[in-house]
Order: sequence, then C-alpha cells, then structure tokens
Amino acid sequence: MWTNPFKPYDILSEEQVAQIHNHAMLILQEIGVDFLHPRAIDAFRRAGLTIEDSRVRFERAFVEEQIKKVPETFEVQARNSKNTVTIGGNHMVNAPVYGPPFITDLDRGRRNPTIADFTNFDKMAQATPQIHCAGGTIVEPEDLPLETRHLDMVYSHMRWTDMPFMGSVISEEGARDSIEMSSILFGGRANIEKTPALLALVNVNSPLRYDDRMLGALITYAEANQPVIATPFLMAGAMSPMGLAGTMGILASAQMARHYRIPFRGGGALTSSKSPDAQAAYESMMCLWPTVMGGVHFVLHAAGWLESALLASYEKFIIDVETLRMFEWMLTKGIPFDEEGFAMDGIREVGPGGHHLGSEHTMRHYRTGFYRPWISSTENYDRWQRMGSRTADRVANEKWKQLLADYKDPGIDSAVDEQLKTFIEVRKDAILHARV
Amino acid sequence: MWTNPFKPYDILSEEQVAQIHNHAMLILQEIGVDFLHPRAIDAFRRAGLTIEDSRVRFERAFVEEQIKKVPETFEVQARNSKNTVTIGGNHMVNAPVYGPPFITDLDRGRRNPTIADFTNFDKMAQATPQIHCAGGTIVEPEDLPLETRHLDMVYSHMRWTDMPFMGSVISEEGARDSIEMSSILFGGRANIEKTPALLALVNVNSPLRYDDRMLGALITYAEANQPVIATPFLMAGAMSPMGLAGTMGILASAQMARHYRIPFRGGGALTSSKSPDAQAAYESMMCLWPTVMGGVHFVLHAAGWLESALLASYEKFIIDVETLRMFEWMLTKGIPFDEEGFAMDGIREVGPGGHHLGSEHTMRHYRTGFYRPWISSTENYDRWQRMGSRTADRVANEKWKQLLADYKDPGIDSAVDEQLKTFIEVRKDAILHARV
Repeated sequence: MWTNPFKPYDILSEEQVAQIHNHAMLILQEIGVDFLHPRAIDAFRRAGLTIEDSRVRFERAFVEEQIKKVPETFEVQARNSKNTVTIGGNHMVNAPVYGPPFITDLDRGRRNPTIADFTNFDKMAQATPQIHCAGGTIVEPEDLPLETRHLDMVYSHMRWTDMPFMGSVISEEGARDSIEMSSILFGGRANIEKTPALLALVNVNSPLRYDDRMLGALITYAEANQPVIATPFLMAGAMSPMGLAGTMGILASAQMARHYRIPFRGGGALTSSKSPDAQAAYESMMCLWPTVMGGVHFVLHAAGWLESALLASYEKFIIDVETLRMFEWMLTKGIPFDEEGFAMDGIREVGPGGHHLGSEHTMRHYRTGFYRPWISSTENYDRWQRMGSRTADRVANEKWKQLLADYKDPGIDSAVDEQLKTFIEVRKDAILHARV
Repeated sequence: MWTNPFKPYDILSEEQVAQIHNHAMLILQEIGVDFLHPRAIDAFRRAGLTIEDSRVRFERAFVEEQIKKVPETFEVQARNSKNTVTIGGNHMVNAPVYGPPFITDLDRGRRNPTIADFTNFDKMAQATPQIHCAGGTIVEPEDLPLETRHLDMVYSHMRWTDMPFMGSVISEEGARDSIEMSSILFGGRANIEKTPALLALVNVNSPLRYDDRMLGALITYAEANQPVIATPFLMAGAMSPMGLAGTMGILASAQMARHYRIPFRGGGALTSSKSPDAQAAYESMMCLWPTVMGGVHFVLHAAGWLESALLASYEKFIIDVETLRMFEWMLTKGIPFDEEGFAMDGIREVGPGGHHLGSEHTMRHYRTGFYRPWISSTENYDRWQRMGSRTADRVANEKWKQLLADYKDPGIDSAVDEQLKTFIEVRKDAILHARV
C-alpha cells in the first residue's frame, strides 16, 4: 500500500462540512431509509429506533454515536503477510476495476469475459506493485453459471494472487461461501475474525434503500467481522461525462470521511471512453487526481475501467498502472528538504553559466532523481518512428502480454488447495441441485 | 480569463517556504548571477550592488525590497476590451503552446511549420473561449526569413485575433518592433504604457546567467512598461519524463509566488509523447492539475504541446481544450451550498426507493447540472461503433477543421491595418538590407 506524505486538500470550509452533516442528519431523521431485510429491521428495533414497515428513521445522536464506533484504520490480511494492507489513516490501497459485463483488448475486441480473463487480471494485479488488492468481481465470467461463478472468482483470487481480495456480495449465500473459503485459506474462522481477510462492496439502491440480497451479504460479513464498503449507487458518478461531478464529489466526500474519522473508498480511473485513447486518459486523471489529493483510502477501479463501468480493458489496465506509478513516485519522493536536496554544493561547484550534467551532485542523483516511465515514450522522434510510431495503447498491448509472461505463481499449500477445491465441488453440487 | 473559487493547495509548510527563500537569498548573495548586457550592469551599479565583470551579487534586503515593488495583479489589454485580462490574484489566463520547431496533424504528419499554420493556431485560439491569450511564437514559421518573421507573427496575432498576445523576444530590435506595432494598434505608445498590451517571455540561461539578447529584449519591454515573464530554463521541466518533476515543482513554485505576492507563470499541458494518444493526455493532466490546484496565474502551453516542446499538434490543441473546458466547468460551478443545491425538496418528493429522473428539482437542473463534453464520447457502444469507432485523436482531427471553418474574423480598422503593413514593409526592407 502507499503512504501519502501530503496533507489532503480541504475543498470544504468548516461551515460547509457542518451544513452537509446537518442535511444528512435531517434526511436520516425526517425521511429515513428503507431496509428490506427482517434481520436488519430487528437489529434497528432492538436499538430503539422508530420503524414503520421497512422504513427506519434515525435520531442524530444515535447516528453520531455509531460513527464514533467505526475504527479510524483497520488491517485486511493477505496470505502473504507482506501484502497485508491498512485501510485508513494516510494509507492508500488500489484495486482493479470491478464488475464490467464486457472485456476488450486490441487483438480480440469487445466480448463477453471468461474466467480465463478474470484470472489474467488476477495475475496482472499480482505482478503489479501499484495494485495492492486483487479486487472482487473484476469482470463477470460469462462462461460460468451465474449461481456458482462466485466460487470460481474467489478461488481465482486465492490461487493466483497472495494479496488481499474482496468477497462475493451476490447474496447471503455468496457471502457465506466467501467466508468459508477464507476460513480454509487462513486456517480457521477465528483467524479471519481476529484480522479481517475480506473486503465486501455493498451498493445502496439509491435513493435511501437497501435491498434484501445486499443486506443479507452485509449482515453475513459484519457478523464474521469482515469490513463492508457501503456505496451509494450514484449515476452521476457511474455515467458519463465521467469524472467531473465525480471530481468535486471525491474531494468533498473524502473530507467528510476525515471529519468523521472513518476510512473512505472513492475515486478510480473512471472514463466513458470506449477505447484506451486520450479521452480515457484525461477522464481517468480527472478522477485520480482528486483521489490522491483527497487522501482516499481504498481505490476501487484503479486500473482497467472503460465505457462507464461496462468494459474492462487489458490495455487500459496497463495505461492506468503507468499513471499509478507516477503518483507512487510523487508520494514516495516528496520534496527533499535536506541540504542534499537543496544541492548547494552542486550550485557552488557549477556557478553561473555552466551546466550541471557532470557535477558531483548530479552524478549522485541522476539515476534516481527522475521518474522512469514504464510505457511512456521518452525517446527522440527518429527513434520513436524507427520503433514503429507506437501510440500508448499499442505499447500497452505489448506490455500486458509481457506482464502475463513474466507473472510468478505465488503457489499454494497443496492440502489447502485440495480443501478449497473439495469445498467448491460440494457447494456447486448443492447449488445446481437446488436449482433443479 | 478564469476566476478560481478554490483555495490553492499549499504543498509546503511555512518553515519550508522560509528554507527555500533562505537558500535563494544565499545563492543570490554568495554566488550571484551573470548579466551579459552593459545596460543591466549599469542599472545594478547605480543601485549600489557588488559587481565583478558581469557577475552581480545581491544583498538579501535589496532583493526583498524589489519583490515588494512587483504588483500583485496587473492588466494586459486587448484591442477588444472584453478580452482584456488580469494577471495575478485568483485569476487564470491560458495561452497556447509556444516555440516548437515542428508541427503535426493526423493528415499531413510531422513537418516544418509555416506562417499559415501559425495563423491557423491564432484562429483556433480566437475561436476557443478557454484560451485567453493568443500566445507568442506559437510555432516557428520556417517558410519566412528568420530575421523578419517576428513582424509576421506579431501581425498575425493582431490581425486574426482581438485577444492579448505576446511580443517578440528574439532581440532588442524584435522587442522594439513589437512595441511599435502595438503602439500603432492601440493608438499611440502612451496608451500601451498606461495599460500594458504585450507580455514577453524571457528565458534565463540557467544556471544563473542572462544573455545579451534576452536582456536587450527584457530592458526594452521594461522601459515601455510591458510585463516580462522571467523563466528559468529548467531541463527537468522541458525534458521527458514530463510532468513529474514538474508536478511538485508547479505547486511549490506557485506557493512561493503567493508568499511573495507576485503573479506566477507555470504549468501547461506538457508531455513527451509524439502523438495525441493516452500518454499525451495523462502526462498533460499530471501538469494541468497542479496548475489549477496551485492557482497558477498565466499558463503558457495550455494547448497544443507534444514531444517535449519540439512539436505543436492541431489535434492535441483540441484535446487540451476539452480538458480546459472540464476545469472551467469545475471552477465555474463550484459546489452549490444553498438550499437549491442541497435539493431537500427533491429528496422529500422522491423519498426512499424512487428515482429522481422526473422530480421537479431534476427538471430544473438536468440541462445545466452536467458537463457537456466537446469531443469526449458519451454515447453507448453501438452508436459509437456505428459512428466509426473514433478515438479521441480522430474526433479532434474533425474538430479543428470545424473550428477553423467556424472561425469569425474579428476584423480590423483598415487605416490601422494599412499603418501596420507599411511599418512591416519598411522594417523588412531595413532588416534585409542591413543583412547585405
């Protein structure tokens, strides 16, 4: 994960923060929220809230008390402990695109994704230091049955990466399966209850309603002590023109989360472009900049998103990773405020009218002083032309193949693997049997 | 010009600002700066500074006293007074690319620029509300003699735009010609001395040296009360990988300028890419974001730059303008903190589980609430494919032709035009005669 040395940008005044909070409290108290799950209603009733059918209204004091219970930071463990991440504080954790029903690359074009595509993205995530979480439903593997594919997706994360990953939220059952499989991988449920091993993404059915499937998954994860990201399904953020309503929204929402001292998910490399072109890049940067400046903690869709969430792209994944590498360089380098950074010895040595190319200070720093691009062209024009006048999407096309070729299998304990496979087999039988 | 409602991002602590200032003062005092022009040396001698040959050393108190004399804001007038701009404060003024020896478009490829290309960029700038200054040496018109082409460039700005523009800095003579022509355009030298009508860009020969040609132009402009932008020629900012050393540099330099209360030039849509591709876009955004967040006042190279300053691009101009339009929308919209912005009536009307598509609040805002893209694709995939699967560079290729076709000639007073043409003719004769 990254540690952001820069202070987040406060786009709101203190008074504006208070205004937003007051309006939120007013909505929760006066209008309320619908919860379409009896166990959720029970829990709120036990807490003494006002309930009419599925409508729950929240007193301000109650909400403010609950907010205080949220930990400011928490860990999500990975089976390789080097990859365990901290969510919150001044940390930033990146995960790939989540959820598109289509996938594309420059060779094969736009098509339905398969589990092979899914696993390719797992492998690319594993091979990319700037991606810290393997993600969840990276793409929908349409070659597998809808009812059981969550088992294959969770297994792919577990087998081909040793990073943190996200559980299924398709249903209560999907959540239970994810927790069971994690319990196998981490040597027992107690181990994942102590330190969470799954993140789950639950979308609110905006406005102001949680459906039964999402709530089933939410409650199941919460009872197993796994963190849940509750996300309003904002069309202004999911639709084109991407990034703009989003840009100020990310900064403002991240600041509200800081105000509440709770971890915050936001941002990503979002675009409505259909191809890994200039539009894809500038719209993604319209979101990634406020993501970094706002100090967002968990960044879903950090790589691979196209077409307003409908399309995952191999080349876009690579292009986004190059921008993530640039941000990483910024966050890692900071501005050096020591005598070495001020370079007075070099300035004295060279003096007016000379050049710094051979100075001792330059010799000490030229290897590390500049960002080294991964796909960006920095060669001169003649050389660029001789190499085939490749645009960034073409270079990215070569790069993802190389990344997959260079991928190193983290391996898995064979007994654990056997147990996982047996669990999946049994569950698939049960689910497909129940369907008949 | 734009007015930025957001507070600039302070990347430096107060202590760091003081550290940078102290080091700058140390360099000026201990090492000094070479000025290769007798009139500059004379001026410094009259001011009582320590001088050895061309080396001038500056006392801290002297420098701090000079900084206080710089106005916090100033106007640069345009012949159409609606286009007069304020430099400084919370204003932001954008100008196109400056200086490339090559030009490109998707039809004709990379080639030497002509005065026709130069005038095309003037016309595109004139037709683009997000460009506030026509610029200076947009490209080098290689079809015209080096000694006299500054006359044709200044004339092109004057004739085909009614915006502010930049004068020639090729020599003392070039500066004098620019001032003479502006005096003609604005009805006498007194009128441009009262309110400046030219901006000039003078590069320091880093490190720590000003050459005679640049100083000749600088002194000439200063004596005519025209503002001069003094820019260190930083290879880290002019070379690839673009934008990164630049990114933090822009934020830090802009903050130092705020500390000194002086107008600041910085940023731009910089990239080392050779084509208007994803790299061109993400690298440009690496510079444009800190430009906006840093509250930069004058943004040269805001549109049309490729290949580390070697290449101007018609398509890149259009792509950059789309990103400028997005920033403009952000700066114009801000975040609405009134009751209408909080939309409580709409939220009450719709309640949980409904949708806002038909609410009265939505009907009042849907036309203006979203950014309307200029070149970005927002249509669905099928329609995008039917339209030819155009990437952003292809759309931009169509757009610049349309922009030139739609360009409206601002006209010019025929007597003034006659005077300008006569002046140019006389000067060309004199310069080319002197050459023989």
